[in-house]
Amino acid sequence: MERRILLTECKDDVGLIAKITNVCFLFHMNVIRQDQFASHEDNRFFMRTVIEGNFSDEKISETLINTVINVLPDGAIVRLKDESKRKLCVLVTKESHCLGELLMKSYSGAMNADIALVAGNYPELGALAEKFGVPFKLVSCEGITKEEQEKNMMDVIDECNPDYVILAKYMRILSPNFVNHYPLGKLINIHHSFLPAFIGAKPYHQAYDRGVKIIGATAHFVTNNLDEGPIIEQDVIKVNHRYDPQTLAKAGHDVEQMVLMRAVNKVLDDKVFIHGNKTVVF
Amino acid sequence: MERRILLTECKDDVGLIAKITNVCFLFHMNVIRQDQFASHEDNRFFMRTVIEGNFSDEKISETLINTVINVLPDGAIVRLKDESKRKLCVLVTKESHCLGELLMKSYSGAMNADIALVAGNYPELGALAEKFGVPFKLVSCEGITKEEQEKNMMDVIDECNPDYVILAKYMRILSPNFVNHYPLGKLINIHHSFLPAFIGAKPYHQAYDRGVKIIGATAHFVTNNLDEGPIIEQDVIKVNHRYDPQTLAKAGHDVEQMVLMRAVNKVLDDKVFIHGNKTVVF
Amino acid sequence: MERRILLTECKDDVGLIAKITNVCFLFHMNVIRQDQFASHEDNRFFMRTVIEGNFSDEKISETLINTVINVLPDGAIVRLKDESKRKLCVLVTKESHCLGELLMKSYSGAMNADIALVAGNYPELGALAEKFGVPFKLVSCEGITKEEQEKNMMDVIDECNPDYVILAKYMRILSPNFVNHYPLGKLINIHHSFLPAFIGAKPYHQAYDRGVKIIGATAHFVTNNLDEGPIIEQDVIKVNHRYDPQTLAKAGHDVEQMVLMRAVNKVLDDKVFIHGNKTVVF
Amino acid sequence: MERRILLTECKDDVGLIAKITNVCFLFHMNVIRQDQFASHEDNRFFMRTVIEGNFSDEKISETLINTVINVLPDGAIVRLKDESKRKLCVLVTKESHCLGELLMKSYSGAMNADIALVAGNYPELGALAEKFGVPFKLVSCEGITKEEQEKNMMDVIDECNPDYVILAKYMRILSPNFVNHYPLGKLINIHHSFLPAFIGAKPYHQAYDRGVKIIGATAHFVTNNLDEGPIIEQDVIKVNHRYDPQTLAKAGHDVEQMVLMRAVNKVLDDKVFIHGNKTVVF
Repeated sequence: MERRILLTECKDDVGLIAKITNVCFLFHMNVIRQDQFASHEDNRFFMRTVIEGNFSDEKISETLINTVINVLPDGAIVRLKDESKRKLCVLVTKESHCLGELLMKSYSGAMNADIALVAGNYPELGALAEKFGVPFKLVSCEGITKEEQEKNMMDVIDECNPDYVILAKYMRILSPNFVNHYPLGKLINIHHSFLPAFIGAKPYHQAYDRGVKIIGATAHFVTNNLDEGPIIEQDVIKVNHRYDPQTLAKAGHDVEQMVLMRAVNKVLDDKVFIHGNKTVVF
Repeated sequence: MERRILLTECKDDVGLIAKITNVCFLFHMNVIRQDQFASHEDNRFFMRTVIEGNFSDEKISETLINTVINVLPDGAIVRLKDESKRKLCVLVTKESHCLGELLMKSYSGAMNADIALVAGNYPELGALAEKFGVPFKLVSCEGITKEEQEKNMMDVIDECNPDYVILAKYMRILSPNFVNHYPLGKLINIHHSFLPAFIGAKPYHQAYDRGVKIIGATAHFVTNNLDEGPIIEQDVIKVNHRYDPQTLAKAGHDVEQMVLMRAVNKVLDDKVFIHGNKTVVF
Repeated sequence: MERRILLTECKDDVGLIAKITNVCFLFHMNVIRQDQFASHEDNRFFMRTVIEGNFSDEKISETLINTVINVLPDGAIVRLKDESKRKLCVLVTKESHCLGELLMKSYSGAMNADIALVAGNYPELGALAEKFGVPFKLVSCEGITKEEQEKNMMDVIDECNPDYVILAKYMRILSPNFVNHYPLGKLINIHHSFLPAFIGAKPYHQAYDRGVKIIGATAHFVTNNLDEGPIIEQDVIKVNHRYDPQTLAKAGHDVEQMVLMRAVNKVLDDKVFIHGNKTVVF
Repeated sequence: MERRILLTECKDDVGLIAKITNVCFLFHMNVIRQDQFASHEDNRFFMRTVIEGNFSDEKISETLINTVINVLPDGAIVRLKDESKRKLCVLVTKESHCLGELLMKSYSGAMNADIALVAGNYPELGALAEKFGVPFKLVSCEGITKEEQEKNMMDVIDECNPDYVILAKYMRILSPNFVNHYPLGKLINIHHSFLPAFIGAKPYHQAYDRGVKIIGATAHFVTNNLDEGPIIEQDVIKVNHRYDPQTLAKAGHDVEQMVLMRAVNKVLDDKVFIHGNKTVVF
């Protein structure tokens, strides 16, 4: 008995759940957990089914997927994922808290992924990565164009061939060329504010100037609209008039690392569907 | 096209979701939303399916229920609920915040229920109920035994014949006789602490004496074990050393009314299953 | 022994706390609680001191204030407030949840204020106000200019002469003329979003379109910059992909009424100082 | 200009703030921030004053302390702390999340302390400590009595001579002999539940069995009453029926590491006073 996650996405229709679970039933698969969502705005259907059964023969998976596709409306996207560890590439600049949390959770086994590479545009976090036996590559911006640096970064990432690229406080604005190089859903960013408040640079200074009583962080998939990609997870903490930009940032870092970690874990568990510029998170 | 909520509960088995959604499909019912949970601890299956279809003929509901029962394991419990307003009876003593919130939400339409009766062991809240045109009955403890008072209260409740009895800060310990008079799930209580901390009386004094940094409230179904019934909803707020028992209570009241209101709304939406001494809340 | 709240605000300087508490000591006033804050950004000092002593002679207060002013830098603002109930005027449109919470907390004594008047640009909430014996005035926009309607509203408010005007979901944009008619700090608004996200109209639709995972509410003093006044209190709740604009709004209403109530209570306790476009909240 | 933190604790009396700030004024010390609390339950006064001035001569601190003691009631406790890094000894067993967070925050500079030693009753976390260049000592329980093991642990700690001992998921119940070996306030523990709920062992199993909707963590000073020491910090996260003891524990770990880190930072900033079995946290 092995476990797989069946991910289905298609135009909404009557009977979809019945059809898909019928197929699972025919294949003697036990449904451990199932979540589904139908968007009434655009008639889009999403389902995540955790199934248990006999996958010893490699053909079973393929046949199962094809059978599900067969019973669904045209254009259905069906994926079958196992629970093996994913491979991450983490991009950083100088701030260590998000990288540190990822390294720790990978080390302790609380994150179902290996960090295959850390790449930074500054050398500061190399020592931290290497403490955990993770290779670090410096992809400097010094003396070269933005285009060249991005080309170097893409080469480094592509050689690593990760399942996901985590922007763990990578303080560079990505060009459309870079973003389009990867499929939507592969790049995950942590933004240091409660989006859509304080879009752009220096959010803790913006928060200070505005006198907010709460600050937050947002983890989202990266698209070509800066800070506008589908949101995966958000959280906040309370602050007050005693906070200055520095203590706001310090408090914010705790939220950032927590929000990024939760988002990454949701993605690694295949609980996140992209739905236009939003997400469905089961 | 009318909407119904199909609630299913039975021993877990392979293919349950397929079987139930098949029946819905056969009856030309569109599934609007579905949630299910299988407890791996005791192999119990719970499903809530919101369906839309033609219920103009009264027999359709009955046939649908029977067909579902037919395809499920022996002992399955299947209910079909419409979305009509439920009828509540609210028990109170002297504190007005929970009753006030229920009255306001009923008044504004944010709660899908009518409050048919408020019954109190003291007269203080009669005026408030009557502001909203809700009859108030005083069921005093004065000069009679606990048994007699409970008998009077049961008479008052039973005459009202409510769907749910809300104990909105009714500060009496209920006897087994009273509790057993009602089916499990009919009595909902708000407890003024984050259970299982501070079981019993004077929780805000207990919280003060213990020096906690957070206080909470718990809404739960009533059973014969005081403060031990299945928990529906809990929430907390932060406090600090400046709070005394009075200001703790004042802060706690805000959490109490919010937690009770959320729990009642979940129950009214038929999103809550009782599962042993726990709940499944969709 | 009576209690007073001494509020001090001035240019920051060495020895201010000593000087003020010395004066209290000289007047045989016991300090029950004291909070102070010095902004290092603009060298501004704020202090709130709860004192207990003999105020039987009316002159004591005046002398105390003058003595404090004497020891402080030029331009100091010193106020001495008693703990008597304040008088509120509440402006509304059609949504009842914030008004309902204010009425309930005033009724139960959990808010240290009387609601002297409810004024609405629609008649819908008149019945609710009158349930609690609070007069309601309709100040319609029908058939008159915005300027005329605002003039009517100001007349109604000024006749009431309240300590604070609470905009409890009053869905009109106020003109500079209206805002400037009142001292800064007198008008308190509840904004249905976590400012500065979703400034302007239809925030729940904006939140839905953006796919946020958290929604919030903001209570602030009103200034001539729409949604830009000093923030008093903010809070949030978690939401997910299942929420549509209607259920977002329903969830949001709970945060709105809670945030507004907390902000009003802070203001009524004289715990809020305005500091530029921010607040100091003790 | 150097900065010091003046901590005062004594019997409450009229004029204390004036007296202490007068002394600061006389010594030409600028008050940067001040917090005070008077407990009306037992007439105890606590004050934390951040002052800036000339401390170049070593005698100034001594004279300042003595002058403050002089003006205060008998038995006053007056301490003057600088902002230098504190020295920590961290006790662990096998779970890495709390130790990892402490190591990371020390590494990044977000915690104002050096971890001088990690000591464990199992060897598992030695490798992690050593990644950060922190010595690890194994103080095994194997083949020796509890008394002997505690003696060994005390020797190891005392040789390190730390300012604070952090029990970062050290899964041993400490004997009175061990606890009494250290002054109250030196030992800080993270308890894996929202105390006083789920006192004792296996709190996540207890939480699962009780069906709670929220789980929490509590950081507290260690006393001889198991899980009854003064609480420094608590926080919670929401859970639901889908969580089993393992996923509850995983979610709980995130709260544990966050709560412990906040508590340690508060203690390192000298913002925590012990007040009987409670704390005052500024």
